[in-house]
Amino acid sequence: MALIKDFGSDNHSGAHPDILKALIDSNKGHTTAYGLDEYTKKAIKKFKEHFGENIEVYFVYNGTAANILGLKTITDSFNAIICAETAHLNVHECCGPEKFIGCKIITIPTKDGKLTVDLINPHIINIGDIHCAQPKVVSITQPTELGTLYTKKEIKILSDYLHKNNMLLHVDGARLSNAAVSLKASFKEISADVGVDLLSFGGTKNGMILGEAVVFFNKKLSQNFEYIRKQGMQLASKMRFISAQFEAFLSNDLWYNNAKHANKMAQILYREVKDIPKVKVSQKVQANAVFAIIPKQYIKPLQKKYFFHVFDEHKSVVRWMCSFDTTEEDIKSFTKAIRTTLS
Amino acid sequence: MALIKDFGSDNHSGAHPDILKALIDSNKGHTTAYGLDEYTKKAIKKFKEHFGENIEVYFVYNGTAANILGLKTITDSFNAIICAETAHLNVHECCGPEKFIGCKIITIPTKDGKLTVDLINPHIINIGDIHCAQPKVVSITQPTELGTLYTKKEIKILSDYLHKNNMLLHVDGARLSNAAVSLKASFKEISADVGVDLLSFGGTKNGMILGEAVVFFNKKLSQNFEYIRKQGMQLASKMRFISAQFEAFLSNDLWYNNAKHANKMAQILYREVKDIPKVKVSQKVQANAVFAIIPKQYIKPLQKKYFFHVFDEHKSVVRWMCSFDTTEEDIKSFTKAIRTTLS
Amino acid sequence: MALIKDFGSDNHSGAHPDILKALIDSNKGHTTAYGLDEYTKKAIKKFKEHFGENIEVYFVYNGTAANILGLKTITDSFNAIICAETAHLNVHECCGPEKFIGCKIITIPTKDGKLTVDLINPHIINIGDIHCAQPKVVSITQPTELGTLYTKKEIKILSDYLHKNNMLLHVDGARLSNAAVSLKASFKEISADVGVDLLSFGGTKNGMILGEAVVFFNKKLSQNFEYIRKQGMQLASKMRFISAQFEAFLSNDLWYNNAKHANKMAQILYREVKDIPKVKVSQKVQANAVFAIIPKQYIKPLQKKYFFHVFDEHKSVVRWMCSFDTTEEDIKSFTKAIRTTLS
Amino acid sequence: MALIKDFGSDNHSGAHPDILKALIDSNKGHTTAYGLDEYTKKAIKKFKEHFGENIEVYFVYNGTAANILGLKTITDSFNAIICAETAHLNVHECCGPEKFIGCKIITIPTKDGKLTVDLINPHIINIGDIHCAQPKVVSITQPTELGTLYTKKEIKILSDYLHKNNMLLHVDGARLSNAAVSLKASFKEISADVGVDLLSFGGTKNGMILGEAVVFFNKKLSQNFEYIRKQGMQLASKMRFISAQFEAFLSNDLWYNNAKHANKMAQILYREVKDIPKVKVSQKVQANAVFAIIPKQYIKPLQKKYFFHVFDEHKSVVRWMCSFDTTEEDIKSFTKAIRTTLS
Repeated sequence: MALIKDFGSDNHSGAHPDILKALIDSNKGHTTAYGLDEYTKKAIKKFKEHFGENIEVYFVYNGTAANILGLKTITDSFNAIICAETAHLNVHECCGPEKFIGCKIITIPTKDGKLTVDLINPHIINIGDIHCAQPKVVSITQPTELGTLYTKKEIKILSDYLHKNNMLLHVDGARLSNAAVSLKASFKEISADVGVDLLSFGGTKNGMILGEAVVFFNKKLSQNFEYIRKQGMQLASKMRFISAQFEAFLSNDLWYNNAKHANKMAQILYREVKDIPKVKVSQKVQANAVFAIIPKQYIKPLQKKYFFHVFDEHKSVVRWMCSFDTTEEDIKSFTKAIRTTLS
Repeated sequence: MALIKDFGSDNHSGAHPDILKALIDSNKGHTTAYGLDEYTKKAIKKFKEHFGENIEVYFVYNGTAANILGLKTITDSFNAIICAETAHLNVHECCGPEKFIGCKIITIPTKDGKLTVDLINPHIINIGDIHCAQPKVVSITQPTELGTLYTKKEIKILSDYLHKNNMLLHVDGARLSNAAVSLKASFKEISADVGVDLLSFGGTKNGMILGEAVVFFNKKLSQNFEYIRKQGMQLASKMRFISAQFEAFLSNDLWYNNAKHANKMAQILYREVKDIPKVKVSQKVQANAVFAIIPKQYIKPLQKKYFFHVFDEHKSVVRWMCSFDTTEEDIKSFTKAIRTTLS
Repeated sequence: MALIKDFGSDNHSGAHPDILKALIDSNKGHTTAYGLDEYTKKAIKKFKEHFGENIEVYFVYNGTAANILGLKTITDSFNAIICAETAHLNVHECCGPEKFIGCKIITIPTKDGKLTVDLINPHIINIGDIHCAQPKVVSITQPTELGTLYTKKEIKILSDYLHKNNMLLHVDGARLSNAAVSLKASFKEISADVGVDLLSFGGTKNGMILGEAVVFFNKKLSQNFEYIRKQGMQLASKMRFISAQFEAFLSNDLWYNNAKHANKMAQILYREVKDIPKVKVSQKVQANAVFAIIPKQYIKPLQKKYFFHVFDEHKSVVRWMCSFDTTEEDIKSFTKAIRTTLS
Repeated sequence: MALIKDFGSDNHSGAHPDILKALIDSNKGHTTAYGLDEYTKKAIKKFKEHFGENIEVYFVYNGTAANILGLKTITDSFNAIICAETAHLNVHECCGPEKFIGCKIITIPTKDGKLTVDLINPHIINIGDIHCAQPKVVSITQPTELGTLYTKKEIKILSDYLHKNNMLLHVDGARLSNAAVSLKASFKEISADVGVDLLSFGGTKNGMILGEAVVFFNKKLSQNFEYIRKQGMQLASKMRFISAQFEAFLSNDLWYNNAKHANKMAQILYREVKDIPKVKVSQKVQANAVFAIIPKQYIKPLQKKYFFHVFDEHKSVVRWMCSFDTTEEDIKSFTKAIRTTLS
């Protein structure tokens, strides 16, 4: 099994040793299943430390489920969910949201993966028209699928706008740790404090084996979540093994150090590639991803050396992701391969 | 965190050390996500060793998903799935099958959790009547939710009958290891060889952290599974961590030894309780569960000492499950508690 | 086209002339579509005269939709709906309720198609258990699919019981007119006054071309119905053509006279067949249906002369329905055919 | 009830007298329900005369159902359906397609409501990628929601392109009569002959009380439709009342004369308004609709006199529809009102 580290995705990395240690430590005796155990209580306590006391938090296996089950809980089948055209929710969940919620996904083209009131506003239409899907939620991704960030203020403006329109704000935070580090903010400051109603919070991409959290910032909204999670095939029996990971993840700055490192590696990668002829970095590097345009004919040769994803085939945009375990050595080797291949 | 081992469920146990070791060993470098990794290839190879070459196998997080996503793949929304009234599919999946498949679940009362041709036959009606759900699959559980077993011959009779009626046989094998041990049969002998079309194969309850497999014995049937798994929120990104567990599970007789032990503990528990006055064992003990009727007034006091589930409140039936890590000591303590409480 | 009148179903009949007249009369000029027209206002007014002012009523095309869309409006996807095993909802809607609502249908075997508190009570279980479908509605049919009736008192007992358990009572009243006539009661007395929460009210089987109504007796429950009706493909554009029929149906005792006649014909049919050797009437004749057991070998020969449905193949039960346009002559010819065939 | 004829929609009109006559004529004696009657056989025969022998045709109540149920029959839940942003399917079915099919609707902005290969091509991506909805059908509307037409050749180019890509072409033909008249083509020439796979064929907007047809041009595709129609709440019990209308509709050029008249009225309306100052006709007038931009401040005053829909609030586009019963007098009065209001 090759030990080479690629730049394909932050879920190509494995688990952080501290996560594995927590897992092993939790493997003692019997505990009640399905989340009624002490490990889960402790993990929830950790979440409250980071996000504030006034939350309800539930664990699921993966990010697709966090998005779909959270959104199902706060919408009806005749609602519309508005997101950027590039949203994971839209592109990479195999119409799971439509299937499980029954809703319409309204997509908005963007330059940088970010929504604004101006972009959203034309879609807040047909309110009360029984022929039309009723907009209920805007879902943003933080950092976006293009590696860009919303500032606290930008989120606040969105949530204020939505609440005035009787709508809700969902944040897909599969990589929220990377955002928090980059924004030099606590989790609470970029969620509860700026009006977020529902958050999908990621652990997997930042060093966990698996595990994501659904965080409701208004307890009324979460009322049916536990039934929906079970019905949605996402209630873990041996829940302690997710909870123990989350407790470790949110302790001793593990989430922070991992994300900080990945972000730093992306900055180094950016510095290394930005001046390579024929490479054009196409998005601000604000989290742990570098997006670049490279001539089409070099993509496949380079992929043979290092696996990575083509983000936009038509525009020849590629995505290079850094992980918590990426090293400066890895970057050197990779950028060397880029230079060689492109010349 | 209490180390006491209860008899509530085999998923109250943790993970077997060999499983954890495999997990740790797989935590090396980067691998492609979503199942395109070497660990998954190896695990699939192991499945083929046990179930025959002519299978398609996919991994999901839990048993509810294995059942629902497998069945979704082989049915249409206007089909009916027939199962015992006691089936997990019917009782403990929060109408997930109805929600995700759209189908009807036809339930049949049984004495021992087992279906027979005679029980099924009256429900194979209205074929071709467009007003009525069309029976497509019979789902049996092996061992049943009542701890009883189907013999190879019984399964063969069912599958022959169903295939003659253009129907399919699904086996919910969340505890198939326990069945195989008890029947002194290989996995292949109790699935492929006796006409099973689709199997949910369990790892979690027999010593894994989490992980279940969906096994198709006819490749044509599995055609759409991968889309349905992704849409159904069950495609693990860091798949290696499920696959590595399964490889260990199916190697060095780990599955066998674990299940054999659990079954043996259930026999010991049975021997210990069968003569306790006021305890009436109500089902054959063929796997790792003991079902007993005890007077209602003793249930809560006993539960205070040891957690376990009431299976049928009306008939005062309780369920005691043994795990791969149950010890004779545990049984002694527990039966002592029963004797004390009931006298 | 044969003019023979059969006893297959009350929807084998055509439309009453007064219904056609109303339809023609409404065919004047332009009206706003989708129910915002004067005919719909008038029809709603008529419903309020019959059912009380405190209702919300909406029109749909057929009875299957009235049941499914009404129930969808008052349930969540993790709820269970309890009904008799013989319920149209269960047997003859091709798992439409499961598909559109996502819910579980819990079925109860009965002798006469009627549910009682004693029959329902064992199924009000697992309340608050997130693994299990949560019972929310009991659906009864009035008259039942077996032609039997609930008394006002029986309905009240059911609704009281359900409301105490935070549940709701739905009545499938595809033939409610026949029930009202037979019970010598107003529509209000057998719905609003005895605690019914939701009613599917039928027009088609009692002389309309098509058209059913969904009546909510608690306005809070109906909040989302209009979106669900549109999404559920049941919002008629030229609504006036349903509304005008309903206005006529509920005027000048048309509903009453039609149902009274059909019921009377069923009584005559009953008197004629009850003493025929080999015919055993198997249910009380309380509405417009006669259920009888006849020897299997005579069913097909008789069906060749007169179309009718076999209700239970195993028990050799057949159903003979009378319509608003059935005549005593029709019954004479039919019973003659029965006598001839069975001797 | 006002007899004024507005330009709000062609479903504001009533029924053509010949349709009512057919309805009345079919109201004789008993017929088998659910489509097993002679009227339905005759109507199907008529469809085969117009569309070719090699079709399967089924009747439903309305156009939303024709679209959704037809598309459900030829797709899986993980498929994407591509349509113009303005498609009825997208805008005016309250996310019914997403709810009932589970699929993704991919929308494409257009100038004139028409799709082309160039517009579609960028969306035929991610084929075989299990993370992504798989494009399966392109749905076009003929005439479009903007009153424009596809030529036979344009449809053929689309269907050829789609078939090469293993995809299918659906036509929403709620107003197909208007298209056929305008294109001087038979129904077959603009459907079967140019590669259409599935058609929603409208009767309601062209003089019927209600009734739409789902036409499959490949019998293999229609295999499950009857179950899906029943499950989808669209199987009419007294089917003869829809079938008899369709038979009349397709006889004696009724569909043709009605559509021809409506189209002609639209041309007259167009001629009358095109030179009114402040009115800017914004789409080609090819069927029975006129789209115009008028200054925002005049919309409400004009709507007070004549009901019509605003098509695009932001761009101040209004829609004026002509019906089979619109007269030149109506147009004169309406254009007079426009002139008066806008000056």
